[in-house]
Amino acid sequence: MKFSFGLLTLFILTTSCNAPTDKVGKASVNDSVKNSNALQSWNDGKTKQSIISYVDDVTNKQSKNFISVADRIVVFDNDGTLWSEKPVYFQLFFAIDRVKSMAADHPEWKDKQPFKAVLENDMQTLIKQGEKGVFELVMATHTGITTDEFEKIVKDWMASAQHPIKKRPYTDLVFQPMLELLDYLRAHDFKIFIVSGGGIEFMRPWSEKVYGISENQVIGSSIQTEYDYNEGKPVLKRLAKIDFIDDKVGKPVGINRYIGRKPVFAVGNSDGDLQMLQWTASNKLKNLEIYIHHTDSIREWAYDRKSSVGKLDKGLDEAKANGWILVDMKNDWKVIYPFEK
Amino acid sequence: MKFSFGLLTLFILTTSCNAPTDKVGKASVNDSVKNSNALQSWNDGKTKQSIISYVDDVTNKQSKNFISVADRIVVFDNDGTLWSEKPVYFQLFFAIDRVKSMAADHPEWKDKQPFKAVLENDMQTLIKQGEKGVFELVMATHTGITTDEFEKIVKDWMASAQHPIKKRPYTDLVFQPMLELLDYLRAHDFKIFIVSGGGIEFMRPWSEKVYGISENQVIGSSIQTEYDYNEGKPVLKRLAKIDFIDDKVGKPVGINRYIGRKPVFAVGNSDGDLQMLQWTASNKLKNLEIYIHHTDSIREWAYDRKSSVGKLDKGLDEAKANGWILVDMKNDWKVIYPFEK
Repeated sequence: MKFSFGLLTLFILTTSCNAPTDKVGKASVNDSVKNSNALQSWNDGKTKQSIISYVDDVTNKQSKNFISVADRIVVFDNDGTLWSEKPVYFQLFFAIDRVKSMAADHPEWKDKQPFKAVLENDMQTLIKQGEKGVFELVMATHTGITTDEFEKIVKDWMASAQHPIKKRPYTDLVFQPMLELLDYLRAHDFKIFIVSGGGIEFMRPWSEKVYGISENQVIGSSIQTEYDYNEGKPVLKRLAKIDFIDDKVGKPVGINRYIGRKPVFAVGNSDGDLQMLQWTASNKLKNLEIYIHHTDSIREWAYDRKSSVGKLDKGLDEAKANGWILVDMKNDWKVIYPFEK
Repeated sequence: MKFSFGLLTLFILTTSCNAPTDKVGKASVNDSVKNSNALQSWNDGKTKQSIISYVDDVTNKQSKNFISVADRIVVFDNDGTLWSEKPVYFQLFFAIDRVKSMAADHPEWKDKQPFKAVLENDMQTLIKQGEKGVFELVMATHTGITTDEFEKIVKDWMASAQHPIKKRPYTDLVFQPMLELLDYLRAHDFKIFIVSGGGIEFMRPWSEKVYGISENQVIGSSIQTEYDYNEGKPVLKRLAKIDFIDDKVGKPVGINRYIGRKPVFAVGNSDGDLQMLQWTASNKLKNLEIYIHHTDSIREWAYDRKSSVGKLDKGLDEAKANGWILVDMKNDWKVIYPFEK
């Protein structure tokens, strides 16, 4: 990151909060519960117990709630669910770095927003450009090259860039308890998909290595591509046109498009995941919905109803009304990141 | 099918031909080749040998051509490659039957093309409506309902409808040698995807049962869907808008969109598959491209350069120029359909 921290603070849009969270009921924990070792970074309590009970039940052939392997479809959001998303989505940092590295070829950007703001590290002005500005940044920095070129750029960036506050590679900032949950579900023959508002081709180059989730189980927003025979060396060109926005009402659409089957288990952290959780909750098979609630202002960030990144407002109400699990990061998780183990 | 055979003949657009095919070189066959039992409906010869040699080589850890399991991505076209496609694509028969079963609710169709032609079994007029007519039929019969409703309609139709000439359920008309090839590749840890111009939601309801290929490994053309919360019973509505055409230059786009990795093994039968084979052939890993050549006018159909369904013209030239495998159905396959075993 080439940012100065001073400018970055302008980016920090999170709000602290003391939102109500699920109380940890240690007395209710069955200490001898099967497989609990798998979730070792989870504190014992109602949250962990609910997850284990669900998995035990639906994988038990004697249970009336038994679910066949083919129907064990799990969907996870990415930003704020599998890794952090503050002070802004990591993909925006990627776009900002791309603007800087491409600037020499684009002298016109010096005088054109939102590029001017990025090049001048003027985050206040950048923020004023709003969604339209972010859209322009993404289009300018993510397109006009081939899919192979873009994959290499993402891999190189992930290998070298650092989070401006945590001073770590971005892929270090995944949640250790969630990695354990992925392993635990896989051990019980669940098939796991990422269903993210982030760019599908921004996630795929590292999802297998970091999460153990192969490219074809990664669903995200996408831009259009075009086949070019290129005199016998065919390429796919990335066009400056949106193909699909995998957020909010787009998430059930994306699930249907890519998976073709309704999930039984869904995990998100924001209002952008609400429809995905509703869709999963409508499954006739026994299902589980989880919201990750960012309650830890010390180890990670604390935010919900008023955050402009990862806002959790309607979803918080619906989770309480429907009895969905609210993971209290501060109290339910022993560690946040793998490097803290 | 409610068609009379007389009208159906108007539909038969195939042309017989005596196109050149790969000669079967029995002398070159290594009788002791490993795993050949798996492809028991394939006659011994150059074609079968080429497939087995490729798989043996790339799955041999000692070989310089070894391919890791994650890269063992295989793509198969469906119509004309995994099952028959004559006299017309089976999905068009489905659309025609849908028009008839929906007609009572659409009195206006009596006087409106292309519906009028379908209702009057006037295939000559229907054919004159061309692609635009087919598009209208599909839009009218595949949309305006939920994804769940459509899935049920497809399943019910597949369970009851019969092919007008073969007098068999459509899912009986899959190619036995291809079922064996799917099994053979799976046994060697290849991950198999269907990449078809046909409707993705027309194939998914039966792909697992018939081919052993799960929904999320089926790629096809699609229409747009829309999420409707529906007072807590959410549905996805199928809209009368094209989302994606997974044919010709769309096939590499679809492969990238859904799989996110370049295949090493591709099988098709028409010019609609040409770009998929080119894309696969550009893989730096050792790769294999196969065209199924419909040469058997007795047991199946014989057609290539001049057929309006499943035309294989440019692809035939490119296969020969590039040394791609041409499967000669008449000479390479002991049986065509499973019921002939």
